[in-house]
Amino acid sequence: MKTRSYAIIGAGALGGFYGGLLARHGIETHFLVHSDYEHIRRHGLRVDSSWGSFRLPKVHAWRRPQDLPPCDVVAVALKTTRNGLLPRMLPHMLSKDGVVLILQNGLGVEDEVARIVGAQRVMGGLCFLCSNKVGPGHIRHLDYGRVVLADYDPKGRPMGITRRMKEIGADLAAAGIPVQLSRDLILARWKKLVWNIPYNGLSVALHATTDELMAHPATRELVHTLMKEVVRGAAAEGRKIPRSFVQKMLDDTDRMPSYLTSMRIDYDHHRPMELEAIFGNPLRRARAAGVELPLIDMLHRQLCFLDHRNTRESKSSSRRIAARVRAKS
Amino acid sequence: MKTRSYAIIGAGALGGFYGGLLARHGIETHFLVHSDYEHIRRHGLRVDSSWGSFRLPKVHAWRRPQDLPPCDVVAVALKTTRNGLLPRMLPHMLSKDGVVLILQNGLGVEDEVARIVGAQRVMGGLCFLCSNKVGPGHIRHLDYGRVVLADYDPKGRPMGITRRMKEIGADLAAAGIPVQLSRDLILARWKKLVWNIPYNGLSVALHATTDELMAHPATRELVHTLMKEVVRGAAAEGRKIPRSFVQKMLDDTDRMPSYLTSMRIDYDHHRPMELEAIFGNPLRRARAAGVELPLIDMLHRQLCFLDHRNTRESKSSSRRIAARVRAKS
Repeated sequence: MKTRSYAIIGAGALGGFYGGLLARHGIETHFLVHSDYEHIRRHGLRVDSSWGSFRLPKVHAWRRPQDLPPCDVVAVALKTTRNGLLPRMLPHMLSKDGVVLILQNGLGVEDEVARIVGAQRVMGGLCFLCSNKVGPGHIRHLDYGRVVLADYDPKGRPMGITRRMKEIGADLAAAGIPVQLSRDLILARWKKLVWNIPYNGLSVALHATTDELMAHPATRELVHTLMKEVVRGAAAEGRKIPRSFVQKMLDDTDRMPSYLTSMRIDYDHHRPMELEAIFGNPLRRARAAGVELPLIDMLHRQLCFLDHRNTRESKSSSRRIAARVRAKS
Repeated sequence: MKTRSYAIIGAGALGGFYGGLLARHGIETHFLVHSDYEHIRRHGLRVDSSWGSFRLPKVHAWRRPQDLPPCDVVAVALKTTRNGLLPRMLPHMLSKDGVVLILQNGLGVEDEVARIVGAQRVMGGLCFLCSNKVGPGHIRHLDYGRVVLADYDPKGRPMGITRRMKEIGADLAAAGIPVQLSRDLILARWKKLVWNIPYNGLSVALHATTDELMAHPATRELVHTLMKEVVRGAAAEGRKIPRSFVQKMLDDTDRMPSYLTSMRIDYDHHRPMELEAIFGNPLRRARAAGVELPLIDMLHRQLCFLDHRNTRESKSSSRRIAARVRAKS
C-alpha cells in the first residue's frame, strides 16, 4: 500500500496539533507556514497535550506553496477569513490525485475550494478540538480532538462512506486522532453549527464565556432558541437534526468549564471573525431554500458591526504605533 | 381661575428642568428630592439651557413625601426602575382632586400608578428632551423639550382631549414648555417606542452611539427591522403607526449629532436600565394580544444579561471600596 503524504496549511492551534501528531507517527507531513517559519525551521514544533506532550525538533516547514513537494492530502487549517490566499496556494500543493481536506468551521467552504481544485478533490473535516497556539511552533492542546470526515458533493447530496475517507481516516487514527466517518457532509456541518452559532455569536456580542451564558435564564433560553433556528436552517436543506441532539449540546456545555469560544478569542485579538462561514453562508443557504432565520440574522448583523469597529480600531492602533515608531526614529 | 400647584418627584435631568421652568414662571412647585436635598435646599437650582439659562436661589425642596403640601399635579420624574418607591410617596402628595402626571419612558407605567391612586387620577406625559444632570441641583439642557400629554383609561381606550389636559398643558406652555395634546395615550407611547427600543437597546448591546448604528449598513437595517416590529406590537393593540413615521424616525436620527441614549448612560454608570418599561411591558402586552416580537425579545434577553452583570459588578465594586475603606481605618 502506498503511503500518503500530507501538507498542512497553517501551524496554529489546529494545524500544528493534528500535523504534529501525523509527523510524530512518521507520516510524511509538510507545513506551509508564514509568520512562524523561521522559528519552526530552527526549533521545530512543540505540543503540550493531556494526551501526551511531545517535541519534534525537525519538521518539514515551508514558506512558499511552490516549494513543497505535491502532497496526497492538503489539509486547510487556516481561519476561513484568510481563504482569499487559497487560489494561489492549492494548485501548487496537490499531487495528481490529491485531495484537499477542509478542517475549517462553518458551511460552504468546500464549495469555494471546489471552484479552485475541482469538486472531486475536496473533502470536509470537522474538528472538535480545544487547543491554543501559545507561541511560535508551540501548541497547547486542552481537550477533545475528534475529527469527523465527510466527502463532498457539489450538489450537496450525502456521499456515504467513500474509500478515500476510510484511507485518510486510517492515517489519522494511526496517528492517535479519534476519527468518525459521516455519510452526509451537509448534515455534519449543520450539526456543528448548532453549537457554533449561539455560543460563538453571543460570546462576542455579550462579551461572555459559555458558562456565563448558561447561568442567566435570559441567555440560556436565547441559546436554546438560536439552536432551534439552526435546526430549521438544516431542515431547509432537507437535513433532520433531532431534538435530543440540541438537548445534548446544552447538557455538554453545562458540563464544560468556563470556555472562551474561538470567535471570542479572535475578537479579543482584534482579528477578523469567521462571520461568513459561520453566519453568512448558513443564512444565505437557508434563504435560498425559502427559510428565514431572523434571530441568527440579527446576531450576524450585530457581529458585522462589532467586527468592523474592532478590526478598524486595530488598524488605526497599528497606524498609531507605526506613527510613534516613525516619530522616535 | 384657581392656580394649580405642582410637585415634582425627582430633580434630575427631567424633573429639574421642567420643574425649574414652572417655578421660574411663578407656579407653586415643590420638589421631592433625595440625595441632592441639602445642596438644593442651600443653593437652589441651576439650569443651563439653549432656551435661556437661569438660577433659582430658593426652591421648595423636601426630603419626605409627608412634608409637602398636597399638590394638584404630582409629576413623576424618576427612572421607572425606582417605581417601587411610589406606593409610599404618592398618597401623601396628592390633593383631593389631584392628578399624577407620568413623565416616564415606556409602556404600562400608568397602570402601575393607577393601582396606587385610582385610574381617574392618572395622566401620561411623554417627554422628548435631551438634558443631563451635571451636578446636584445643576441641569444642562441640550436640545428638544416637547411634552405630549395624553389622558389615561384603564381599558386602554383613547380618551380624546380632556379638560384637565388642556389646563395642565396651558400651565406648561405658559412656563415655556412646548406642549402637544394627544387623544390616545397608548398610540403615543408605542410611537415613542419606535425610537426607544432600537436605539436604547442597541446602543447598550453594541456599546455604540446613534450615529455609529446608522453608519454601518448591518445595524442600520437592524434598527429599521426592530422599528417595524414595534409597529407590529402597536398593531396588536389596535394602533396604526404609518410607515412614514418610521421613516421620519430614521431621518431625524440621521440628522442628530452623535448621541448617547439614556439607557446607555444608565448602563455606563452601572445603574439598572429601564428594561421592564421599555422592553418587558411592550413584549408582554403584544404577546397577550397574540403577537410575538422575536427580535425585540432577543434584544431584551441580551440586555437582561448585560444589566445583571453590570449592576452586580457595580455592587461588588462598592463592596470592594467599602472593604478598602474598612481596611484603611
